Amino acid sequence: MKLSEIKTLQGLIVVGEDREITNVNTIANADENSLIFFNGKGELKTKAKAIIISNRECIFDNDLTTIISPDPKLTMAKVILECFYNNVVSFLNTIRSEIYLSKIFDNVKIGVEGVIVGVNCTIGTQGFGYVWDKDHWLRFPHIGSVVLEKNVEIGNNTCIDRGSIGNTIIRKGVKIDNLVHIAHNADIGEHSLIVAGAVIGGSVKIGKKCFIGMNASIKNGIIIGDNVTVGAGAVVLKDIPSGETWAGVPAKKL
Amino acid sequence: MKLSEIKTLQGLIVVGEDREITNVNTIANADENSLIFFNGKGELKTKAKAIIISNRECIFDNDLTTIISPDPKLTMAKVILECFYNNVVSFLNTIRSEIYLSKIFDNVKIGVEGVIVGVNCTIGTQGFGYVWDKDHWLRFPHIGSVVLEKNVEIGNNTCIDRGSIGNTIIRKGVKIDNLVHIAHNADIGEHSLIVAGAVIGGSVKIGKKCFIGMNASIKNGIIIGDNVTVGAGAVVLKDIPSGETWAGVPAKKL
Amino acid sequence: MKLSEIKTLQGLIVVGEDREITNVNTIANADENSLIFFNGKGELKTKAKAIIISNRECIFDNDLTTIISPDPKLTMAKVILECFYNNVVSFLNTIRSEIYLSKIFDNVKIGVEGVIVGVNCTIGTQGFGYVWDKDHWLRFPHIGSVVLEKNVEIGNNTCIDRGSIGNTIIRKGVKIDNLVHIAHNADIGEHSLIVAGAVIGGSVKIGKKCFIGMNASIKNGIIIGDNVTVGAGAVVLKDIPSGETWAGVPAKKL
Repeated sequence: MKLSEIKTLQGLIVVGEDREITNVNTIANADENSLIFFNGKGELKTKAKAIIISNRECIFDNDLTTIISPDPKLTMAKVILECFYNNVVSFLNTIRSEIYLSKIFDNVKIGVEGVIVGVNCTIGTQGFGYVWDKDHWLRFPHIGSVVLEKNVEIGNNTCIDRGSIGNTIIRKGVKIDNLVHIAHNADIGEHSLIVAGAVIGGSVKIGKKCFIGMNASIKNGIIIGDNVTVGAGAVVLKDIPSGETWAGVPAKKL
Repeated sequence: MKLSEIKTLQGLIVVGEDREITNVNTIANADENSLIFFNGKGELKTKAKAIIISNRECIFDNDLTTIISPDPKLTMAKVILECFYNNVVSFLNTIRSEIYLSKIFDNVKIGVEGVIVGVNCTIGTQGFGYVWDKDHWLRFPHIGSVVLEKNVEIGNNTCIDRGSIGNTIIRKGVKIDNLVHIAHNADIGEHSLIVAGAVIGGSVKIGKKCFIGMNASIKNGIIIGDNVTVGAGAVVLKDIPSGETWAGVPAKKL
Repeated sequence: MKLSEIKTLQGLIVVGEDREITNVNTIANADENSLIFFNGKGELKTKAKAIIISNRECIFDNDLTTIISPDPKLTMAKVILECFYNNVVSFLNTIRSEIYLSKIFDNVKIGVEGVIVGVNCTIGTQGFGYVWDKDHWLRFPHIGSVVLEKNVEIGNNTCIDRGSIGNTIIRKGVKIDNLVHIAHNADIGEHSLIVAGAVIGGSVKIGKKCFIGMNASIKNGIIIGDNVTVGAGAVVLKDIPSGETWAGVPAKKL
């Protein structure tokens, strides 16, 4: 569809060409027909040609159509609900995987070999992402998947939310204990271990062979390197470089 | 029934009139036919005319029948088990609510509009309240309800216990993440957000539009104002006034 | 079988007699036909006559057959997988117990009287014990049981893992709240209370009538005496003597 055909965008200031849009995407994964939004954080390197952006962050670029919104995330949520919400591919692959009495939604992509999911898990549900809309919280629609690569093992009563735009990824050989929460768009590196009660926030990136201790909390958006140890009950509010051990509330390097 | 007909009370000192009792209740919600108990905390403003109270706290009032017990909470538990335990109204209203694979007991009252409950939740079970009785823990009987008002959304693998005497209340527009525990008689104010892994203790009162971070713990009986932010992993042991941000173990004002 | 018949042990240095082995066991519970392993911690008092041990810890005793391994735990894991993994007795005793909608595996032994298990619990699954094997995590096989003694009450969405070698034991009158994790080989003493969100690590030993607060974390192998109180959100990294109250991250005596 054309940008001008999206009702949610009507009434907003649009600077630039009326482009053809085929998908919504993350800044990094966008193609030339993606619509993206910018929340003021991170680098704006993208192939997208259409962006929802706030007044303050506003950039003008002849090659980029700019839609100015007082709340870009809220506008994006409404665009997805209007145009892209039913556009989710379903594929559940249980070949060579052992799955017990858990509810796994069909947006979850399971690696073909050696995946084990225990009992009472919930995998592939909407994440906990809300945007304030005048007088109530609007849930940001989650249209991404959960990817479980090969040899991932998940304990019991653990929850993994699907990505909002983009996927939640549990990489090869990761082992997750009981009662763990992995939020939308988290990316857990190969062979990392996550112990019971840990909560991994949205878009957290954890490197390879890390150890996340019991009841640890990792704040949304944190980036953790390889071979990092996070102590029991630690609250991680800052990025952690590779090879370090952090503990405490807030967590500090030991 | 008359107070004198309740076997549990026989053998205790009773000062005052032998009154007609039709219900057990909280101090605040009692009517003239309620039996209440006082555990030494909070204000004793009540319409009740019959009270179980300890020797130390003992007050004499011509208008109030006073039953003196070495352990008022234990005595009340036994009165409920003897006289009021099957006296629970059942009503489960799922009109216009989406409920997935969760166990919701029929003491739960669900607002008619927009309530969503995810997968593997447990709502409406007995709370974790025990009273020591000579050589074992006696579970305080929970005869209250859970009330989910309209537009409440609850994630997955989350537990909400029914009230003991009185209800557990989740008010309009509250959003609760995965793996959260809400104990008996908690009262969560409109549009508050509670993130994964948080534990809300018994009788905690949280105001409007608060944010309770991941893995935070709120001790039994704490009162939190409106627009309060509680950080990830915080342990809240004191009341928090409106508008403040608290974090740490124990939590302090930032 | 004879030690020499176990393929996993072929290629390792074996000092002493080629003994008949009928079981694998813990150091303390072993009999004369047990194979045990030593991980360098604790006292080596045992009736076993065959031990897997590392080069560094190596002891020579004419009466004890010593198998030297660079990683005794990994070697033991492989011996169990080769010889003892299907050797698990099944017995589920639900007489006079109330069990709701929980998955209880048939390695769980339930005391005959007054056991209550709530909704969405997972009891008797493999523990979270992994040994690094060249390029991946190998799950240490868990062949022990979970023992629930009489009058144990367990809330909802709680997980209790079976023992690896030896059992996980929940003793008489223990009460466990919602969303609690009890790891493999933990031993919870009579009449102790464990509040929501607490994580009890592997082989933790908790004494009688203790109180473990909400979201507390007890590190693997910790020993806690009788009548101990552990505060909400506490992270216990040291043993706690009887009668003390500990809180904080890391937990200290109050």
